[in-house]
Amino acid sequence: SRSINLAVIPGDGIGQEVVSQGLKVLRAVLPQDVKLETKEYDLGARRWHRTGETLPDAELEALKGHDAILLGAIGDPSVPAGVLERGLLLKLRFAFDHYVNLRPSKLFPNTATPLAGRPDIDFVVVREGTEGPYTGNGGSLRTGTPAEVATEVSVNTAYGVERVVRDAYERAKARPRKKLTLVHKNNVLVHAGHMWKKIFDKVGEEYPEVTTDYLHVDAATIFFVTQPERFDVIVTDNLFGDILTDLAAAVTGGIGLAASGNINPTGAFPSMFEPVHGSAPDIAGQGKADPTATILSVALLLRHLGHESEAARIEEAVAADLAERDAATTRTTDEIGDALAVRVAS
Amino acid sequence: SRSINLAVIPGDGIGQEVVSQGLKVLRAVLPQDVKLETKEYDLGARRWHRTGETLPDAELEALKGHDAILLGAIGDPSVPAGVLERGLLLKLRFAFDHYVNLRPSKLFPNTATPLAGRPDIDFVVVREGTEGPYTGNGGSLRTGTPAEVATEVSVNTAYGVERVVRDAYERAKARPRKKLTLVHKNNVLVHAGHMWKKIFDKVGEEYPEVTTDYLHVDAATIFFVTQPERFDVIVTDNLFGDILTDLAAAVTGGIGLAASGNINPTGAFPSMFEPVHGSAPDIAGQGKADPTATILSVALLLRHLGHESEAARIEEAVAADLAERDAATTRTTDEIGDALAVRVAS
Ligand SMILES: CC(C)[C@H](C(=O)O)[C@@H](O)C(=O)O
Ligand SMILES: CC(C)[C@H](C(=O)O)[C@@H](O)C(=O)O
Repeated sequence: SRSINLAVIPGDGIGQEVVSQGLKVLRAVLPQDVKLETKEYDLGARRWHRTGETLPDAELEALKGHDAILLGAIGDPSVPAGVLERGLLLKLRFAFDHYVNLRPSKLFPNTATPLAGRPDIDFVVVREGTEGPYTGNGGSLRTGTPAEVATEVSVNTAYGVERVVRDAYERAKARPRKKLTLVHKNNVLVHAGHMWKKIFDKVGEEYPEVTTDYLHVDAATIFFVTQPERFDVIVTDNLFGDILTDLAAAVTGGIGLAASGNINPTGAFPSMFEPVHGSAPDIAGQGKADPTATILSVALLLRHLGHESEAARIEEAVAADLAERDAATTRTTDEIGDALAVRVAS
Repeated sequence: SRSINLAVIPGDGIGQEVVSQGLKVLRAVLPQDVKLETKEYDLGARRWHRTGETLPDAELEALKGHDAILLGAIGDPSVPAGVLERGLLLKLRFAFDHYVNLRPSKLFPNTATPLAGRPDIDFVVVREGTEGPYTGNGGSLRTGTPAEVATEVSVNTAYGVERVVRDAYERAKARPRKKLTLVHKNNVLVHAGHMWKKIFDKVGEEYPEVTTDYLHVDAATIFFVTQPERFDVIVTDNLFGDILTDLAAAVTGGIGLAASGNINPTGAFPSMFEPVHGSAPDIAGQGKADPTATILSVALLLRHLGHESEAARIEEAVAADLAERDAATTRTTDEIGDALAVRVAS
């Protein structure tokens, strides 16, 4: 489309810094005739401390009017664990039915990996985003007493599993290797696991060109470090996807490069793009944060909105920039943003 | 004690082969005056195919009479996922209240690790073994229809969490670095996560000499590959422990070396010792399996039964054997067992 009406949630810690660079590159890459409008939403730890609010209804409503959301990072040690995650970040993912949590993992040349031998890593995790142990179901009884019982309920529906599995098959089909791996733990979590596997196999009948594979989540972590090149597309549940994508980020040069999209493929609600990393309060405000993950998230955002060539330009710019990065020179957040803005503009 | 009445469950795939070597080394290390009695139980895939049974009551009763159980591996692709895991392996862990699932991780010199730079890894994971998402709670509604709902319930009790957390503090206190890390996901799984954290902090007041730390499970996987030397003792829930210990095995030379104990510290029921690896049907019967993980599990078994010096002898023998292993020569399962038996005897 010829205009983008973007909501921006910088959030906490390094969120503001990295989002500024994301917007800088976005402005630089867009053709003159695409009108970019942005509106910033003040949500996160500061807002919560000031007003006690995490995501008021009025703002949730207002966010619905945007084409997409760019988010920096949410969370601060001064806020009890879960308040902002459940009240803001997950609330957005659930309210906007972001059932495809897309997380590409690629080891770019010339970037540091903890793995010896620099395997050829290029896969994408399709993490379910609206079900599983993330629903908030469960509770606690006799809280705080020695007789307390606390439960967490993982809720999985055929409806929810089928749509994300189908999305993953489509992505696998569109890639050269056409391989899809289901990761679950169906030898222990038999109820959910069997349903996932059954649906995975059934939908697979419609995709004869896609090679399939199944791994238990524990075994998958082994292959992430010993044979990551075996993966092409992975589809998995919300919690397993959370764990696996942090590990994937670690083996592909670190959390400073890992992008993600919380996508509603139907377009019923705006999709939201954010780096996988957190708010990193220890380095906030010092210009030390690497904005690349946010900038790569902007590429996913552009692709989602149909601006494929601009998305590809950002990804190529990042690859070129990384290839020329000199391990001995550290650049500031701003300098990296500037360098990428220059590259995408030319 | 001056006699050991051991139950042996070889199980499936490579289970038989590795257990034979475990027993060989056990016999070699025990002083003359310790009487070893063993009784083999035919449980696993073959038994299930033959009789449809996984763990009959009579055998469960009989197993109670032993001092400890040595288990090889359970599981075969010919058996539907979950049947043997839930019906046999987990049934034993639950029936015998194995609430401490102990999994040491050590990178021995001269062993392969996928990590560049060979970090100094020496930690132990205390995985809760009788609660969490492993309870089998949950179910499925409208099974097999497009309207299916499948749930998995993670059940956590203050009783269950406190006893395993306390065990972990004791272990941390007994180690030189005295550091204990709780791994959970208390920003999302707020009910269980907050209870774990509260109990972890409260019990910690009794252990002022132990340094504590908390990590979300996703972040923990990052540190496993980028900074594994930061860990000393980790305490975590059943599922997170399952995932983390496979990853830990991968970074410390592979699943062929990872030992584990399913321990009931009260002694009310026999504890069970098994390698972390599975039944590996692809290499079964070929003499290719590395029995070291089982042999190290025998060391844990001996330590649990009070034979500390014999346990240490096995661990030293393994370290010495690994130090001299020549990457160019492959030894059979039997040869490795023989070499270790000779070392511990001398
Ligand atoms: C902050 C947290 C709620 C979130 C998650 O668990 O999904 C984060 O870890 C992520 O991966 O985006
Ligand atoms: C086989 C399976 C049930 C088991 C588990 O999940 O605990 C295994 O992975 C393990 O770690 O011992």
